[in-house]
Amino acid sequence: MRVASLLAPDVEEILRTDPALVAELVEELHPADLADLLAALDDELAVRMLAALPLEAAAATLDSADRARRVEIFRALDPALAARVANKMSPDERADLFAELPEELRADVLARMEREEVKDVRQLLKYPETSAGGLMTTEFVALASDVPVERAIEEVRKKAPEMETIYDAYAVDPNGTLLGSVSLRNLVLARPGQPLHAIMDPTVISVPPETDREEVARLFAKYDLLAMPVVDATTRRILGIVTVDDVVDVIEAERTEDIQRLAAVQPIEEAYFATGFWTFVRKRASWLVLLFVEEMFTSNAINHYEWVEKAVLALSLYVPLIISSGGNSGSQSSALIVRALAVGDVKVRDWGRIVSREILLGAVLGCILAGIGLFRVTLPFPFGLGNPLGVAIVVAGALVGVVMLGSVVGAVLPIIFRRLGFDPAVSSAPFIASMVDVLGLVIYFNVAIAVLKIHHP
Amino acid sequence: MRVASLLAPDVEEILRTDPALVAELVEELHPADLADLLAALDDELAVRMLAALPLEAAAATLDSADRARRVEIFRALDPALAARVANKMSPDERADLFAELPEELRADVLARMEREEVKDVRQLLKYPETSAGGLMTTEFVALASDVPVERAIEEVRKKAPEMETIYDAYAVDPNGTLLGSVSLRNLVLARPGQPLHAIMDPTVISVPPETDREEVARLFAKYDLLAMPVVDATTRRILGIVTVDDVVDVIEAERTEDIQRLAAVQPIEEAYFATGFWTFVRKRASWLVLLFVEEMFTSNAINHYEWVEKAVLALSLYVPLIISSGGNSGSQSSALIVRALAVGDVKVRDWGRIVSREILLGAVLGCILAGIGLFRVTLPFPFGLGNPLGVAIVVAGALVGVVMLGSVVGAVLPIIFRRLGFDPAVSSAPFIASMVDVLGLVIYFNVAIAVLKIHHP
Repeated sequence: MRVASLLAPDVEEILRTDPALVAELVEELHPADLADLLAALDDELAVRMLAALPLEAAAATLDSADRARRVEIFRALDPALAARVANKMSPDERADLFAELPEELRADVLARMEREEVKDVRQLLKYPETSAGGLMTTEFVALASDVPVERAIEEVRKKAPEMETIYDAYAVDPNGTLLGSVSLRNLVLARPGQPLHAIMDPTVISVPPETDREEVARLFAKYDLLAMPVVDATTRRILGIVTVDDVVDVIEAERTEDIQRLAAVQPIEEAYFATGFWTFVRKRASWLVLLFVEEMFTSNAINHYEWVEKAVLALSLYVPLIISSGGNSGSQSSALIVRALAVGDVKVRDWGRIVSREILLGAVLGCILAGIGLFRVTLPFPFGLGNPLGVAIVVAGALVGVVMLGSVVGAVLPIIFRRLGFDPAVSSAPFIASMVDVLGLVIYFNVAIAVLKIHHP
Repeated sequence: MRVASLLAPDVEEILRTDPALVAELVEELHPADLADLLAALDDELAVRMLAALPLEAAAATLDSADRARRVEIFRALDPALAARVANKMSPDERADLFAELPEELRADVLARMEREEVKDVRQLLKYPETSAGGLMTTEFVALASDVPVERAIEEVRKKAPEMETIYDAYAVDPNGTLLGSVSLRNLVLARPGQPLHAIMDPTVISVPPETDREEVARLFAKYDLLAMPVVDATTRRILGIVTVDDVVDVIEAERTEDIQRLAAVQPIEEAYFATGFWTFVRKRASWLVLLFVEEMFTSNAINHYEWVEKAVLALSLYVPLIISSGGNSGSQSSALIVRALAVGDVKVRDWGRIVSREILLGAVLGCILAGIGLFRVTLPFPFGLGNPLGVAIVVAGALVGVVMLGSVVGAVLPIIFRRLGFDPAVSSAPFIASMVDVLGLVIYFNVAIAVLKIHHP
């Protein structure tokens, strides 16, 4: 972004006067910086910039550009130019872009593209964006396993100018079935004349195209992969490869999604200022309304126990303190369990061990808060509110119960969601807090009835 | 983990009877799977397994092993064997392991290691674990920029067996100052006789060793890097390289940290069941206590307005509903802003635009909830609580105010934290909720005083 904001005014000036100069000016910039620059321009100038760049540079810039912005710019391009640039884009980014184009424009651009590239787009569009198939690129080197290394190196050399980075080559049988991977390092180190199957690694880790991108990311992280082949589940034919740069983007995107989910916001992909006001309203209101309806039961609970509050008015002072402590402890355990489930540290079948642990943990944490509460409630004004010891004991007792409840509900709910096949992150902190609020009030008033021996009028 | 749980019983049996066989059994397993296997064994058997493996395999297994577990196992090794294995470990992982060893053992093992490797460890231990220096490895190929490509390929060939993966080579001047990067692809494609400076990329992106790992990850994501050199800030001498596999781990670790911070848990690195009970108590209690103290002010607020509640008893029914709605809306905007700050979508200087947006957003969201509230409060029992219209209007009005307040506080607090140099994620959902609870009560009771024209007795 820094580069973009420094250069944008100059580039605008040049684009208005002599667009051809842009190709020179941006020769030294990384495509990612060009993409920032492009995003900072309005549609008209962005189109002029893409038109002025060499086709390869224009394609690389679109490959790196912000996804929402690039759709807008692409739609503003002349379809003939759009097709020429699209021919040069990297297959995985191009498929993502085409997935977001309006039907008609997509057909128009495809009709003008090269046949090979059109096949590629159609092939990649078959898979959902969040699957291994949606992440993969069709740019890879696959060779018969009996090819000698020097011919393989020749082949890599020939293919290389098309590809931004060379990852492993793959050895296949005549049907295209994956037999093993050959690292460039092993190719370089091999003795001339050795066939690929002598230097290939047959234990190559691969996934079918339907695999979820979270699982793909987990495998990359675990096995320190740079690229992973995607193979047909039945024939084991190699369909494409997923590369680590896309995995890095996946993990960052999932990180954003986690944070939003846990705060009860429906996932928003675009940047904060790029997201429309009413999109925010929609993505936030649905959850706020749900939580509001959930929280309405607190009114019923208080109404139900109104005679208790009337008998000992001081009880109403501590309602927010009691219920929020339960919610806080619930947020904590839900965050810990959601993440532990995501990275595979705990499984659904561990629920028994988790619950017993959280009960104990809740008890200890509840006792700590109860101690502080007991001290403070009995403190004379202005430090405390000078309530009688009875009320202090009720508050302390309720705290222990409510914090235990929060811990257990916060831990169990994500497990139940996972078991039912939902994303555990849906059991967000606010969702758990609202649930614990209602139950917390019931605990509070019942402790009061028992300790203060209040009788229903 | 799957592989480990399948094989663990067999491996245990073999380790007890004929440890030498282990080397064979595990020949086909990836080091990451060996590491899972190792982690599943008790200390004694783990030591036997490492002793039975070839040194390289033992080192690669430790490289991949869970960080907490590997310290325990390493401490149980005979120091002479520990030193031999450490000699073969990858420099970055080894430095991380040594950072966690007790002083005495570290000195003992270092004394038995090869001199070159000892220098490496000391060099890498200088940098904090969360910096580029702490992430980097010292295994890289640096060559004089006038070396011809065929000599460079020869050099890479010689160094390659030591390195797990070959990334770019780097061209340096006689002082070791970084001049450019040379991709393996360009080496393979170059004409014989060309010097490195003819094919190197002089715009290579590098960082000084003090750079925070979050920034390193951001650069990898933006520029689709596989490796990035770390250079001395003043001399620009190349000190090491950070590789993408470590960056993937960094992003995953930061993702865990984010989620924990946002739920008001102090970051915990270990797996759920690997973390001790009292560690959980410590990491959770500190925040729970802080939030509890923060929330105590709700009691003061209610106490202050007790005469209002006494005048219209029904007001107490809606206290949890009002305050939780503010908290929920605050969680949402804080999550959005925390993430937007982290990825650079918004800057501290954008605060004005953010606040005006959140005020509007809060107003719209508040009106939606107010509509539902108005409807429900006046509904007759058992669907509603049958309160008079006046109370319904108070609830609705307070909801609008409180949701706006939540939105704004949730957005502003992360910005303030960032400005003060703290991690914005510290302004967690529970922290904001507690803050909004107190202010929300003040709004609620003041709306009641105004609408219901209640006079102080």
